[in-house]
Amino acid sequence: MTPGAPSETSAPRRRGRPSRTQSENGPATREEILRAAREEFSARGYEKASVRGIAKAAGVDPALVHHYFGTKEQVFEAAITVAFAPALEAPAAIEDGPLEGVGERLTRFVIGVWENPATRAPLLAIVRSAVNNETAASIFRRLVATQLLGRIARRLELPDAELRAELAAAQLVGIAMLRYVIQVEPLASADVEQLVARVAPVVQGHLTGP
Amino acid sequence: MTPGAPSETSAPRRRGRPSRTQSENGPATREEILRAAREEFSARGYEKASVRGIAKAAGVDPALVHHYFGTKEQVFEAAITVAFAPALEAPAAIEDGPLEGVGERLTRFVIGVWENPATRAPLLAIVRSAVNNETAASIFRRLVATQLLGRIARRLELPDAELRAELAAAQLVGIAMLRYVIQVEPLASADVEQLVARVAPVVQGHLTGP
Repeated sequence: MTPGAPSETSAPRRRGRPSRTQSENGPATREEILRAAREEFSARGYEKASVRGIAKAAGVDPALVHHYFGTKEQVFEAAITVAFAPALEAPAAIEDGPLEGVGERLTRFVIGVWENPATRAPLLAIVRSAVNNETAASIFRRLVATQLLGRIARRLELPDAELRAELAAAQLVGIAMLRYVIQVEPLASADVEQLVARVAPVVQGHLTGP
Repeated sequence: MTPGAPSETSAPRRRGRPSRTQSENGPATREEILRAAREEFSARGYEKASVRGIAKAAGVDPALVHHYFGTKEQVFEAAITVAFAPALEAPAAIEDGPLEGVGERLTRFVIGVWENPATRAPLLAIVRSAVNNETAASIFRRLVATQLLGRIARRLELPDAELRAELAAAQLVGIAMLRYVIQVEPLASADVEQLVARVAPVVQGHLTGP
């Protein structure tokens, strides 16, 4: 997590391409920009977040953000793709074990991701942004619907598999909204095991039930 | 619900109290402000919406908005209370008929409210605002959790009734999020009857199941 040493020369900063010095330790700076982007989108939402603000938080020139990622939309997609990387491994949870346990494994996985503060923040950023902005919503659709749910659906090999996966996801999305985002009680304070006991059979039913 | 007739005098407009001319047809103006507030909160979200913008859209002085409703927070609460009036009648759907049909009646009710463009807009405003703003979230909690879900829970007369009501609500909230807000396919285009057939038993199970 060594932030790249931002510029530079004694010339005034300019828009356009970053100076060589700025991009010398590429991977670390790139990581740092993504981290700053997640925090900026999380704190301010897609619309209010700016490349300038992300650059400032990462301690780099805005040109470097553009250089690595392009437009704000592209920074957002890169940031949530990284944030979503663990979630995109969820379909593996379907294969690891018998099909009749898939509801519980998926439920535990999603609740686990939300219970962990490190993964909760980027998820909050995605939800907030997708709810408020069509660009963010379309990125969410592409990532979540096509990749995550599409992969789960293909493994089900049932009629209506995509709709089943989305209805299961809807149960989990709704719990995330009420428990973690809006924080409605008693759901917000309910014991995880109590939740799993009630929710896993529902998710299982959506995925493999009649 | 008779708003007090606000003042008075022939002086030029100023911040503070509205002139008599503006407030002559009180109830109509009040309605008009609430309608403008719903649209403003719906279009811009809680944080970006302003009393000034609402007043402009309603064709009145901002002072009149303050006079009728007080702060922006109070305008928001009034607007979503009105928008939520139909939803707050949902508990009646629980009593009208046998308990074993409650899942289907509640599911049809919620989907119906979201399918209707007139009620969908204020709901979107509530969701967008509650997701992004703690003030809006706390108003949402008070209205939805306490009034709507609390009333349903009391009628269930079961252990964990509140949690049951919230998990049923979570399934419906998640469907609303994925179908109407983020518009994930195939859920967004699924036939209402197909949805009810899959979702009603789940809602029923949460409310009255083992």
